[in-house]
Order: sequence, then structure tokens, then C-alpha cells
Amino acid sequence: MSNTFGTIFRFTSFGESHGTAIGGVIDGCPSNVSLDYDFIQNEMNKRRPGQSLLTTPRQESDSVEFLSGIFDNKTTGAPLAFIIHNNQAASQDYVALKNCFRPSHADFTYQQKYGIRDYRGGGRSSARETAVRVVVGAVAKLILAQKNIAIYAYTSQIGSIRLTSNSVDLSNIYTNDVHCPDNATAEQMANYIKHINAEGDSIGGIVSCVIKGVPSGIGEPIYNKYESQLAAAMLSINAAKGFDFGSGFEQVSLKGSEMNDAFICHNDKVRTATNFSGGIQGGISNGEDIYFRVVFKATPTISKLQKTVDSNMHAIELQAHGRHDPCVIPRAVPVVEAMAAIVTLDLLLLSQTNKI
Amino acid sequence: MSNTFGTIFRFTSFGESHGTAIGGVIDGCPSNVSLDYDFIQNEMNKRRPGQSLLTTPRQESDSVEFLSGIFDNKTTGAPLAFIIHNNQAASQDYVALKNCFRPSHADFTYQQKYGIRDYRGGGRSSARETAVRVVVGAVAKLILAQKNIAIYAYTSQIGSIRLTSNSVDLSNIYTNDVHCPDNATAEQMANYIKHINAEGDSIGGIVSCVIKGVPSGIGEPIYNKYESQLAAAMLSINAAKGFDFGSGFEQVSLKGSEMNDAFICHNDKVRTATNFSGGIQGGISNGEDIYFRVVFKATPTISKLQKTVDSNMHAIELQAHGRHDPCVIPRAVPVVEAMAAIVTLDLLLLSQTNKI
Amino acid sequence: MSNTFGTIFRFTSFGESHGTAIGGVIDGCPSNVSLDYDFIQNEMNKRRPGQSLLTTPRQESDSVEFLSGIFDNKTTGAPLAFIIHNNQAASQDYVALKNCFRPSHADFTYQQKYGIRDYRGGGRSSARETAVRVVVGAVAKLILAQKNIAIYAYTSQIGSIRLTSNSVDLSNIYTNDVHCPDNATAEQMANYIKHINAEGDSIGGIVSCVIKGVPSGIGEPIYNKYESQLAAAMLSINAAKGFDFGSGFEQVSLKGSEMNDAFICHNDKVRTATNFSGGIQGGISNGEDIYFRVVFKATPTISKLQKTVDSNMHAIELQAHGRHDPCVIPRAVPVVEAMAAIVTLDLLLLSQTNKI
Amino acid sequence: MSNTFGTIFRFTSFGESHGTAIGGVIDGCPSNVSLDYDFIQNEMNKRRPGQSLLTTPRQESDSVEFLSGIFDNKTTGAPLAFIIHNNQAASQDYVALKNCFRPSHADFTYQQKYGIRDYRGGGRSSARETAVRVVVGAVAKLILAQKNIAIYAYTSQIGSIRLTSNSVDLSNIYTNDVHCPDNATAEQMANYIKHINAEGDSIGGIVSCVIKGVPSGIGEPIYNKYESQLAAAMLSINAAKGFDFGSGFEQVSLKGSEMNDAFICHNDKVRTATNFSGGIQGGISNGEDIYFRVVFKATPTISKLQKTVDSNMHAIELQAHGRHDPCVIPRAVPVVEAMAAIVTLDLLLLSQTNKI
Repeated sequence: MSNTFGTIFRFTSFGESHGTAIGGVIDGCPSNVSLDYDFIQNEMNKRRPGQSLLTTPRQESDSVEFLSGIFDNKTTGAPLAFIIHNNQAASQDYVALKNCFRPSHADFTYQQKYGIRDYRGGGRSSARETAVRVVVGAVAKLILAQKNIAIYAYTSQIGSIRLTSNSVDLSNIYTNDVHCPDNATAEQMANYIKHINAEGDSIGGIVSCVIKGVPSGIGEPIYNKYESQLAAAMLSINAAKGFDFGSGFEQVSLKGSEMNDAFICHNDKVRTATNFSGGIQGGISNGEDIYFRVVFKATPTISKLQKTVDSNMHAIELQAHGRHDPCVIPRAVPVVEAMAAIVTLDLLLLSQTNKI
Repeated sequence: MSNTFGTIFRFTSFGESHGTAIGGVIDGCPSNVSLDYDFIQNEMNKRRPGQSLLTTPRQESDSVEFLSGIFDNKTTGAPLAFIIHNNQAASQDYVALKNCFRPSHADFTYQQKYGIRDYRGGGRSSARETAVRVVVGAVAKLILAQKNIAIYAYTSQIGSIRLTSNSVDLSNIYTNDVHCPDNATAEQMANYIKHINAEGDSIGGIVSCVIKGVPSGIGEPIYNKYESQLAAAMLSINAAKGFDFGSGFEQVSLKGSEMNDAFICHNDKVRTATNFSGGIQGGISNGEDIYFRVVFKATPTISKLQKTVDSNMHAIELQAHGRHDPCVIPRAVPVVEAMAAIVTLDLLLLSQTNKI
Repeated sequence: MSNTFGTIFRFTSFGESHGTAIGGVIDGCPSNVSLDYDFIQNEMNKRRPGQSLLTTPRQESDSVEFLSGIFDNKTTGAPLAFIIHNNQAASQDYVALKNCFRPSHADFTYQQKYGIRDYRGGGRSSARETAVRVVVGAVAKLILAQKNIAIYAYTSQIGSIRLTSNSVDLSNIYTNDVHCPDNATAEQMANYIKHINAEGDSIGGIVSCVIKGVPSGIGEPIYNKYESQLAAAMLSINAAKGFDFGSGFEQVSLKGSEMNDAFICHNDKVRTATNFSGGIQGGISNGEDIYFRVVFKATPTISKLQKTVDSNMHAIELQAHGRHDPCVIPRAVPVVEAMAAIVTLDLLLLSQTNKI
Repeated sequence: MSNTFGTIFRFTSFGESHGTAIGGVIDGCPSNVSLDYDFIQNEMNKRRPGQSLLTTPRQESDSVEFLSGIFDNKTTGAPLAFIIHNNQAASQDYVALKNCFRPSHADFTYQQKYGIRDYRGGGRSSARETAVRVVVGAVAKLILAQKNIAIYAYTSQIGSIRLTSNSVDLSNIYTNDVHCPDNATAEQMANYIKHINAEGDSIGGIVSCVIKGVPSGIGEPIYNKYESQLAAAMLSINAAKGFDFGSGFEQVSLKGSEMNDAFICHNDKVRTATNFSGGIQGGISNGEDIYFRVVFKATPTISKLQKTVDSNMHAIELQAHGRHDPCVIPRAVPVVEAMAAIVTLDLLLLSQTNKI
């Protein structure tokens, strides 16, 4: 397994869905950073389940306990360890799944790889692990804020309901349960998710993200380009199926003359007239907004009857009773934001080594 | 900079477009592998420029010279170093670009990051670097072939011309200059590229790839999931703007009940009835075909007149005279294949450490 | 900071001497290993303080709580996190040290590096951190035992009292408080330590270690040679000042003809007639016993009055009242053993990637 | 294999003793560093064989050719690749060794690990590889010099002939062939080496090293302490058998009260009155001189008749005819210096990430 992410600012995560606790250790955190615990807890609350009809009813307070690396509320440079206790594990719901390989879940592949698996709530493969990322991301955000770097992820598509680009007001994101910056679109999306849920089904969507304030010069070509690290980070999130930035997949039929970003001089700074590049050229930030999208599939756990096989390779029928999200997108929003923050801080620190 | 890729089977690359040579060092290569130099050179030829009207006229023999790590034509376990001489650097074409920031190129960002840049032919940021990846990928393929793993990338879209899924005959890929498995579509694509080229413009597209024969159990969750490593690898390629696998961006509006891959028992093996998962579940291969797409933007170098600024922040007009590809897709095909091979071999070797 | 050790079998540690808890996360642990908790706790007890007059009176139960990575008492391949609560932190003893730089301690360097420090009990620089290594080492030993690899460290010198090579009976190590395999020498050493303690002073010594049963072929030249990894591991332990293996420093005046290890054939195996090589040739194990030594300095904390400066650069006098070991050697023995186990298991797993 | 060393400033080396060329790639080198090729070549000359009767007669010009990463004689931030051609490989001398396991050489262990070996001149396990380290070290020294950091290694012991601490005049080191800073001692050592050579035998010794000018705050506890990285670096050098720093093995019987380094205030700086710590406390530099020792064994290749076995496990007699050094110490001096420079620069760059 490989449960560490990052080069300088890096974290190691641990824990299963129904174990004692999940948690992580942040290493390489700059010293003398004031930790705002309310901010961190507030970030956690954005991802916390059980908050609306759109998500799993599992109730977790998700309160974060820091164990080390802090003195007088400041980071000391030593590793920051933290744990989040699992309060409402309902493992009895999962005993029936002990010998069952749920379709499009990781049950089969974990069994094949390790020869053993913790089947309770998906064990290590559960999206519960993403809570750890949000804690680490919150610490990263506190540091990035000192550099005036801010990150905004939001829901831009649910099923085939899309946010139009002229209705993106970033201040609106957390004013609705879908985490979509346009309240009218959000309502449509919410209704669609409720409808899907009532059907015993699930649906996917797209999270968009913009990183504002990154100075030029961040990113380490050739193999740790900014976009390469973002892609790795995003595709490590449960249910993520794709990533694109700047012009991406949607503008593939544009010609060079249509999508080249002309450099201009604006307020004594080199800027670009357009931003099809998504703020990154040659793997390095150019000072413009960095923006990208992540697509997530429909949650594989559904209430509808499904066919599958058990560990003895017998055909069985499966009807899930565990708690689950009909749509992961609203809760994926803060996770995307967290991973973007972690990548950005790590590359920012790395860039401090480019010159002596 | 970060010019090493991989954990166990890893390589370090070096070299600029117009320097003496480019090359690389492969470390962690298993010992006792027979090297088929004809195969390696043939892989190089697939990417070599100057082969058709669709690509840059720069002529490079791209012959690979191995310097170490081989004895009696077999790998010894020691690092395999190789160099490829730059024969036809035409640096005089680039003197005019010394103080110019070409739109959507890496000139500006390299200058900002390093305070110095080799402007000749794009220097380190040139796609010439991808030749090194093809050599490493060829070595990886030779090893994967022993395990019956084969990788096929191909052009699936140029501008808005798309290959339809029922015309994918993998044996056709290298029968045309576009590297598209359907000759009729290929011809359309080729004509379109010629048309774009005649306009002094450029166009992007999509490379699709399938990895066949990967056993179940490959991939290292949580942060080195198979898809995460593939995404990082693909987004490190010049001009890549996005990656998706399995259902990806295109099937975002499917419901869970429509896209869950039911497990079935087939010939005493657990298989899936469909493959929306793209052969990966929970970051680990499930034994089915792994397939993914990479989108590339239009080459930023075009002959049309463009506006930009110079290093003194003066507005200038630019008309490129250097040699360049009107469309990178045909030559990106073997690079995608190479990176997929490198990721797969690295994860295969890593999986040998999962059990004692 | 850099708080992760190892490549495949690797761990991240956290925690300060007087914080809530110390602990660690083991990643890359092979799956399906049965965990013998009694064995692990017994290893902890070997290092635990407060057991004899030879060590600090600080009483810590040092009971280990595992939080993740285990199912049905077996490792699942997921990260193994564990914590050890700090029960008997007596921070009031350290308030006087808040602004004091203790001689030969890390107070000054941590302050210079991080601009902040947790002065309570030495904070992160305390030897309390080594408890984490013993837990990880115990897990490694359980796995190595399956391969018939066993590791024995022991006290071979205290001050100028040396164990002679003809009195090494490995079964005796834990029959005395000094952890010396010869009881008569152990008694001399114990008396000397008590004498030093009564003087308010401290003393150093040497820990020797032998690794038995390592097959040939373990170690990754050129830069992760077996001895190189052992040296890095040992020099990371608090108070360690040197490492040598095989002929080492003591046999520097031997000629090649006197110290070359002739290969012989013994029971159909290639063996060596002597073992000045210490079981390693060219960075790779040769199948013979691996043996090495680690020298530790006298504990810097002493009760005698010392001169130093405070954080305002004023000359002050210091007399330590905190609890401390007059000699770290007895408690360093299990730590050396643990680090040797961790290095050996990591290299053993890495060697599984040498061939396909 | 693992042929990369370092975290930020890191290099990958390649090449066998009798292959086409050896070389390396430096990655993470700060940009805009002026490269003084005369200085680099001069460093190479210090290690070059064939310069005196004390070393192997193999003649190699050891001229370094840089292939990339340089523009207008300055580093660009891109990888610096270089090669050194092997001009005087005399492989015919080694055919007799094809099936022979030379005592205390790496022939047997490489064969066991990889199942194949390049027996010509020791292949990858040859000390010829250390030439690459000297090139990288020279680049590191050029950068460290900008920070007023200087490194001096020297021969302090050959066999039982020791340099006394009151005859260390660092300016003398390269005034004699032994690279000992006291010419009288150097002459004794030289005569002893010639005597040993005449006997067909070999001898080991100790290299001492001092690093001057390192500011306080360098080193990354817990597991990349300065001394830990130095130890790993030194033990990766061929024939190295041990490392110690500061008080080390020799002062093991000193008490805490005798060896604690009292802090004092000197010229408005915190300094230490003594330096038993060797300039490192808690893994971090304290601003004083860093000093350490490395012990090397006698060269295993000797002309005297030796018993060993061949690859068919038959007992044979061996008399070496290849060219070899009767004593590696003089040529190890620049290698120790190089590795110390590489470690120091890497940690210096890493320390630039401790604060935001």
C-alpha cells in the first residue's frame, strides 16, 4: 500500500470505515503557523455526512483531535498527528457482505491483492478516508491564506444538469446543500438527487475548482508538473473517473489560433488575454487562475436489486441496506478543495528550493 | 526540477531540444531481461518526426545508444543509461525568440521560475523529451510481454472528427500516418490536419489506450492507485490537458444501476459482465481491460501572426518560422503507450512486495 | 522535518515527550501477518523506563494501542497506526528550562531551525520517540521470524568496560539489567553506572548487534547498500555517534591478506571461511552473519552544575532536576535491534522486485 | 538497484568499470549557478588513478563531458547530465575471473542477487563509480562556496600510522600523494604503502573530514538527521566499513561532564566552548565545525595467492593480475569530500522549506 502523499508538505493517512478511528500525520509542515481550530472544524463540517437528505444518514461528529506537533497553538515543525474517532459504525449492516463482491466496489480487488479484507463498511476503501484529506487540506489552506492563495471547488454538473459558466458566483457555494454556486441550478440538482434516491439509484457528476492567487513559477517539470500532481491527487479520490484543466476535453476541437493565450502587459505585469491554459504552461503556474474539473461516477452502492457473485464464485443477488450517498458530488467538493490545497502548498514549498 | 518518474522501475531523463543529446537512465530494471534492440528502435520510429506531411519536417534518426547496464545483451540489474544525439537542431530559427514569450508556450513560466532559459527549440520544455519516454517504455514493454501484457494506444479524435467505437481494430493502428485504427476515419483526419496546416494553424485531439492482460491486484491504494499513476504520467506529457478512464467524462449522466459492473463467473474466473470501471476498482486492477483517454490541445506554435509581449514587456507581433507539428496526436500515440507501460511495470513490481 | 523511514516497509512517527501521545503509522506491511500482541508488548518492556536503578525513574506503562490495519488479528495490507499515551509527563520539571539551552542537547538547534520549540521534556527531540521504533521493529521481527531471520543486539561496552568476544552468549542478553550477554561483565557495568549516577554524571558505551539468517542477495547498491541503510538507521537514534560493521574501526591495521574472507564450499553452499566482511559484500548480504556496532555518547543531562547561556544570550548556571538515564545503553539495545529489523525487512521486500 | 542519492539536490549514476562510459544526472540543481569547468576537472584529477606509485596504474584522463542543463555556462534548473568515457579498460585481464568469486569482492553477491554479472573490472561494483560522485560533489562545492561553506577531507590513518591532531594543517592536504595534511606523516604513510605493495598486499586506513561554515539549522530530524545522511553517504562508498562524528568511538569512555559542550556567547553569537558534538545536536547543525571519520578496509584485490571457489563451487587458487590500488585511502579522500558536499547542499536546500 501507499498511504503517503506529497514531497515536502506530505501526509500519511490511516484507518478503516468501521475501525476505532481514522487519522493522519502531516510531516514537513512549516513551523510557527497559527492553527485556527474553528476553521479546521468548519472545513470538516462541509464534508460531514448526515447533514441533508442528499447524503448518507450516517451521523459522525467528525471532531478532530490533534496529538502532536503543536505548542502554544502554533506548529513546531514536528509532525502533526490527528485522529477522528468513528462513532457511528454500524457494522452489523455489513455482515451479509462478508462473502459478497459488490458490483463496481473494491471488495473483489482488495481480496485479490491482499488475500484478506476488512469488509465492514468498505474497510480501507471507504470514502470515509477522505475526512483525513480535509483536515490536512484545512491546515494547508491556513498556510496558503498567508500568501493570499484561495481555493474554491463547487458542483458544476449532476447527471446531465449543468451549471452554466455565467452563473458562477463563488460566494454562493455553501449556501445550498449541493454546493453549487447558482441557487437555481442547485435546486434542480437537489430535486434530481432526491428523485434518484427515491428510485433506489445513484448518480454522478462533475466538481469544478479554481485556485486563485498562485504566483508564477510553481510546478516542477518534467514529471511533477502542477497539472500532473493535481491529476494524481484528484484521481486518488474515491469514485473519481477523470480530470482535465484549462481547455480540457470540451474544447478539443479549437484550433491553435483560437486557444493560444496571448501575453499582454497589464499593470506592469505580464498577464494573458485569455486563459485556455488554465493558469499552467509547461507544468508551471503563469500567475493566472488555475482551474480544473474532476468527474465522479455514480455511487456503486444502490438499493436496487443487483446480480453478482460471492467469494465461492456462486451467482447471488444483492440488495444493499447499508447507509450510502445517492450522489457523492456535494461531499466531494471539500475533498477536491483539500487535495488542491495540499498539492499547491507542496509545490510552493518545493519552489523555495529552485534557487540558492 | 523533478526529472525522475516511478518508484521501483523508474527513470531519470535529461536533455534539451537543441543540446548535444537527450537521454535517460533506467533504474530498478529487473535483471536477466533480453533486450531486443530492433524492437526498441522500431518503437522510436513510431514517434520519430519527419515521417509524413502531418508532422514537423525536422529529421532525426533518433538512434538510441545504450551506455551501461547490459551484458551479453541482457540487463544486469545495474542502471541502463542511453543517449540519443540531436542531429538536426536548427537553432538559428530560434534566435528571434530569445526575448519573446510565445503564447501558450513555456517560455514565460520557465523564465519566471528559473531566471534563465535555454530558448533554443523550447529547451527542456520541448516535446523532444518524449523520445526518452519511448525508449524507457520499449524496455518496459519487453518485460511486460513476458507476462502477456500488451498496450495499444491510438488516435480516437482529431478536432471534431471522432472514431466510432465499432471501428476499433487494434491491428490497424500503424497502417496509417494518423495512427487511427480505422483507415477511413484516418483518411478524414489526415485531410483535416493537412487543411489546418495549410491555414498555418494547428489542432488537438484525443488518444485512447487499452492495456490488456494485467492480472488482478495491481495498483497501490490510497495514493498510488493505478488510475492516479496513469493520470500523473499522462498529464506530464507536453500538451496533455486531461485524462479519464472507464466511464469517464462522457458517461457522467449514467445512473449507478446503468453503470455498475456485475460480477459473473466465467471459465472459473471472476469477471465482470460490463466494463464501465475501465478495469480498475478501488485503485486496483480487476483483471479486465484497462482503458483510458488523454486529450491534447492544439500545438501552440502556429504560422499565423500572433500578438504577445517580449521580455521587456513590450507588445510585439510574432510569426513562427521554426519547424513544428500541426497536430501532436499521431506522435503522442507511442508516448501514451510508453508511459502506460512504465506505470504498469512499476506497479507490477511493487505488487511483488505485497506479500512476504 | 522528515519523520518517515523506509522505502517499502516504512513508518512515520509522531509525538513529543510530554504531549498527549506518541505513535506511528506503518505502511507497506505485507498482508496476512498474524500479530502477536504479547510479543510486541514484551519488546516494549525491554525499552521501558523505570525498571531498574540504571535508568530514568519515569514510569510509563508504554502500552500500545493499534487503531487500524488489522482484521481478525491479521494485517490487511492497510496502514497500521498505533498510539502510546504519555502517562507520566512531569512538565513542571521543565519550566525552568524554557529559556535555557542545555549543553549538548537539541534545545538550541531546534530553536534556530524552527523559531519555536516545545521545551517540555525535550519535545520532539526526546528519546521517548524511540518507543515508536520498538513497536515497528517488533512487527518487522514477527515477519522476519517467518523467514528464520533473528536479530540480537547487546551491550558490549560501558565507559571503558568491554565485553570480550569469547563471552558472548546471546541467550543471556535479557538476564541482566545492562543487557550484556556476560553476567560477570554485566555486573561490573551495572556497578559502574550506579557509581556514575551517584556522582551526578553520565556515561556512554557501545551496542553490538548480529543479524542471523539473512539469505544472500539482500541490499540495493549503489546508494541503498545494506550497510548504508543500517548506518542511516543507527545514526538517527538519539545520542548515537558512530557505526561500523565487520572489520570496522578496530581492525583498520589488518592487511588484505589477513582480512579477505576466502570463499569455501560447505554443505553444498558457498560460505566464507572467516567473516571480516560482516556478512555484506558490495552492499549485498552474502549469507553469513551480519554484525555491526553503534557507539552512544554519555547522556547530556547530568545533575552536576553546568555553565551555559539562555535564549537572551546571558551566561547562566544549570543544574538538571528532570528524570534522566545515567546511561542510555541498556535501553538503546532494543532500539538498535528494532531499527536493524526494519532495515532488513525493507530490503528483503525490495529484493522481491529484483526479478520479474 | 538504487542508484539515486539525495532528496532535492539528487543525482543518479550509471556505468561499469569496463563499459563504454560512466556518468550521472544531477537533478534539482539550483538555476543560475556559474559552472567553473577547470574547478570540476581539478576535483576529478584529485581522484584520478595512475598519478603515483601509491595507486593503480590504470590511466584514465577522466575528462567530464556535460550534455545538458547548461546555457551560457550557467545551470538552467534542468537536469545536468554528464559522461566520462572509459578509455583504458583492460578487460582481457579479467576473463580469468569470469567464473571466479574473488574473496571479499562483490562477485558472489551480485551473482546471487541478479543471476548475472558483468565480471569485467568488477562491473558496476567497481570503485570507478566514485568518479561520478566527484563530479557531482564538485558542482555542489561550487554552490556551497557561494555560502562560504568549505569541506576538507584528508588521510588521518594508514594501517597503524596515525596523524596526530596537532599536525592538521588543511592547506597541506594536496601537497603530497597520500593526501595527509602533515608531510612528515605523509612520507611515513607513503613508504608503508609502497612496502605493502611490494609484498603483493594491501592496507586500509581512515579518512577524516571537516565541514566549515555550515549555518545552524541544517538537518532534518528525526530520520534525515545530518549525521544520518552523512553516515548513509559514507557507507555507500566502496570499502567503507564505518563512520563516526564528534566524540565518536574514540571518546566513548568520557563522562557527560567531560564531553558536554557548554554554550557561550561569543561576538554576539551563541557558540560552544568545546566541540565534542561535532557540530551537530539533535540531528541539526549548531554552527560549529562538523567533523567526522570514515574507515576503509584494505583493498580486497591483492597479488598474493588466495584460496576461493568458482561458480561451480570448486575450490580454486587465485592470483590477481589486474591493476589495483594497494591502498584506497588517498583516492577516497576526494570521494568523501564530494559526498559530504552533496549531503550538505541537499540539506541546505531542504532547510529552505522549513518556513513559509
